[in-house]
Amino acid sequence: MLDKGFLDKLKGIVGDENCRTDTAERYCYAFDGGIHRAMPDAVVRPQTTQQISDMVKLANEYKVPIIPRGAGTALCGHSVAISGGVSVDLQGMNKIKEIHVEDLYVVVEPGVIYDQLNAALAEKKFFFPPDPGSAEACTIGGMAACNASGMRAIKYGATREYVLGLEVVMPTGEIVEMGSRTIKDSSGYQFAKFMLGSEGTLGIITEITLRVIPKPKKNAVAVAAFNKLEEAGQGVSNIIGYPVLPSGIELMDDVCIKAVNQATNLGLPEVEALLLIEVDGHPEAVKEDIEKVAEICKSSGATSVEYTDDEKRKVELRKGRKSMIPALSRYKPEWAAVILADDMAVPISKIPQTVKAFHEIADKHGIIVATYGHAADGNLHTKVLMDPLDPEHWKHGEQATAEIFEAVHNVGGTTTGEHGTGITKAPYMRAERKSLIEFMKKIKRTLDPNNIMNPNKMMDWEEGIITHLRYPVNIGGGTDPKNPEGKKSGGSD
Amino acid sequence: MLDKGFLDKLKGIVGDENCRTDTAERYCYAFDGGIHRAMPDAVVRPQTTQQISDMVKLANEYKVPIIPRGAGTALCGHSVAISGGVSVDLQGMNKIKEIHVEDLYVVVEPGVIYDQLNAALAEKKFFFPPDPGSAEACTIGGMAACNASGMRAIKYGATREYVLGLEVVMPTGEIVEMGSRTIKDSSGYQFAKFMLGSEGTLGIITEITLRVIPKPKKNAVAVAAFNKLEEAGQGVSNIIGYPVLPSGIELMDDVCIKAVNQATNLGLPEVEALLLIEVDGHPEAVKEDIEKVAEICKSSGATSVEYTDDEKRKVELRKGRKSMIPALSRYKPEWAAVILADDMAVPISKIPQTVKAFHEIADKHGIIVATYGHAADGNLHTKVLMDPLDPEHWKHGEQATAEIFEAVHNVGGTTTGEHGTGITKAPYMRAERKSLIEFMKKIKRTLDPNNIMNPNKMMDWEEGIITHLRYPVNIGGGTDPKNPEGKKSGGSD
Repeated sequence: MLDKGFLDKLKGIVGDENCRTDTAERYCYAFDGGIHRAMPDAVVRPQTTQQISDMVKLANEYKVPIIPRGAGTALCGHSVAISGGVSVDLQGMNKIKEIHVEDLYVVVEPGVIYDQLNAALAEKKFFFPPDPGSAEACTIGGMAACNASGMRAIKYGATREYVLGLEVVMPTGEIVEMGSRTIKDSSGYQFAKFMLGSEGTLGIITEITLRVIPKPKKNAVAVAAFNKLEEAGQGVSNIIGYPVLPSGIELMDDVCIKAVNQATNLGLPEVEALLLIEVDGHPEAVKEDIEKVAEICKSSGATSVEYTDDEKRKVELRKGRKSMIPALSRYKPEWAAVILADDMAVPISKIPQTVKAFHEIADKHGIIVATYGHAADGNLHTKVLMDPLDPEHWKHGEQATAEIFEAVHNVGGTTTGEHGTGITKAPYMRAERKSLIEFMKKIKRTLDPNNIMNPNKMMDWEEGIITHLRYPVNIGGGTDPKNPEGKKSGGSD
Repeated sequence: MLDKGFLDKLKGIVGDENCRTDTAERYCYAFDGGIHRAMPDAVVRPQTTQQISDMVKLANEYKVPIIPRGAGTALCGHSVAISGGVSVDLQGMNKIKEIHVEDLYVVVEPGVIYDQLNAALAEKKFFFPPDPGSAEACTIGGMAACNASGMRAIKYGATREYVLGLEVVMPTGEIVEMGSRTIKDSSGYQFAKFMLGSEGTLGIITEITLRVIPKPKKNAVAVAAFNKLEEAGQGVSNIIGYPVLPSGIELMDDVCIKAVNQATNLGLPEVEALLLIEVDGHPEAVKEDIEKVAEICKSSGATSVEYTDDEKRKVELRKGRKSMIPALSRYKPEWAAVILADDMAVPISKIPQTVKAFHEIADKHGIIVATYGHAADGNLHTKVLMDPLDPEHWKHGEQATAEIFEAVHNVGGTTTGEHGTGITKAPYMRAERKSLIEFMKKIKRTLDPNNIMNPNKMMDWEEGIITHLRYPVNIGGGTDPKNPEGKKSGGSD
């Protein structure tokens, strides 16, 4: 419960209408797209940076946790108020403030939605390339806080490659300018880059300056089917090593293919691995590249390859991948696609052995692990298919998850390529960052001496904090496990 | 003077042959390419990360400054031992450890030279794009420490866009792994990115994992002459806004043109501004883009435009830009091109008004400011042309520098696009980063509690520390101002 004096002052800062403490409102902020649930004590919707600064200073005075939040599409509990406190909804700060394509930058507020920004940029033949699965809903502020990316990272990089400058309200309330509006900047420590992926633990991002680039003129798509996963992996390596730099390569394993065929009439080939390969650029380059991609796939062992630059056919070829996430949650009656080990990244050539290891781990635990993702940049997504009401399934799901992350770390991979750490991946991130974790804590303690900014996440997660909060366990005003809404996996990747 | 006990232990760590205290050796490490000079108390050449870790722990025990150093090509005094201590030459750690182009990364030791890495990558049709002026000499470790870039940043970004992972010896001696070997990584705070541009104040980089990309197949060059600087600036904006994304646009102002014509027989047109524009990519794209560039230059007011993809002619067209730095230092007998305000960056469209402001400032102070640089990414370089033995020239040169930086900050620009802060630009970086500077200091104090890593630079510079150290003033064993070697401007940009 919040102190009444705190609450009165909070309302004084953001206005009564932007500060809510009723259960219905708090419930709406109790979860993101992942498995963790906890209600904040209050929800505020600030409209200005100054309001945020004043609020953060107040929170320091009263030692109240502050949990920044964009659209809530993340999958790891980043914005779940596991220690109570104030959920800060930034979606109201949603103006595109400046577009200067001839200077290659835009300035936006954190609540601007990814697709809306790109719609505005498209009018000028420019774009902001990272392409998250939640593009229609996710905010630029959330993308920056989590260093989001998507299908095009192999060619275009992640959000961290595009943020030039930030305005940030620090954990102690100061409003700070980081980075610049210039393409190059070596002026002092790269604080703006450091904030990317700090997941609201080091401050609240209130303005973002993004580099933008011209949109490619054309793209083309190829779909290749491989009887052997290893051959698909070799195909990816052969394409990149040739070199052809695709704009994306999506992988679907046999579980994903089966799920899509069960749920749709797409009739995908029942093989070990499908690759959906995209190239973009100048029309002549696209033509040459997609032909070369098809040739390399065949010589790497593909049993079938189709490629096209026809707009209608491209949409059809992408359908299998697009329908996969809902298809996976319908894989088996009463089962759900649970977000446990959801976002590993490995060196690209390690994909086949990693996916094989995942299957072996799943078999050992009597569950199913579906693997798909952005093969071109080594970013694998998995869903654990299991009965979420069966405690034994949870036990095996979590053991499998631990083993999956171990397998990833063993090949030089990382816990999370684009979703971030939050709650779900905190123990695995900590295992991966053994030599770094104490320095992460030092920085956090230095910049946030009262530990109010999104506390107890990432490096500060402790076993005891979260075990009672996990879906589908019903907690104070939380989800009814029999409610089918509870099975939705929320975000997308 | 170093404590004998410290020195004995230091020799025990790196070996007698890799630890030198004689004046001749220390003198060689007393400067970089800039204007500041100070001899370290010792020079060491470590061969392993473990030696560096042991040495840093020892330095903490004895509170001795440690100054990491690559090839010494920087221009701002980054590696000048202004507080004495041990200069750590990392050039001996120069192995390319791994090349995995099909995984899009390489692993190198810090002493690997930029051009050598790219020669090795070229065999596989790949490259590491940042293109510093000192490419033939500078080390990858130095590039990472200073977040170096060069002529191609508009299209390919700076070093910060390519570093995936680092091994770092922290200021307290711990060996820490940061980042990863994967293209994507959202696993914890982005420490690897934060180290880029920290200029040796937060640790010693002992291994670098770099993303690499396929080399473009072809390039072409255009040279356009503009009677009015504003028209050249408009031309740059029109090219980018069209959009054509060039791989680089180099600007030369009238002072640079005059200097080149005085020193060579190239016979450049005596106009207000020359642009050297490069495009690269697929041959068809290059053909279309360079034709479009020429067309846009003409419609923006260029009095002459030449473009070519002929290898021999390209070399000739680049000659003016290539010969400019030595030409500037011969501009007037007894004068030198002094590195004071050397590396500002502004939003691209602000270039014309900024260069005009520089000329007005120079006129006011009776000196000459030559401006050139990477117009496509807004990164301007200037040299102050003056008599380095005339104290009045220094006074005016430094006043002009302060006004130049003020003009840059007034248009939303930054103190340094690619050279870094070091000593020379410390006061201006501090003026620019008003809201951030205290947080820079906090991080430094937290990670380096004994303040031993390259101390008294960047945010920690104080007026009193450096005024007696500046070239051409002769200090203990330092440079004789009558020695013509003293006039060399060292690095390149």
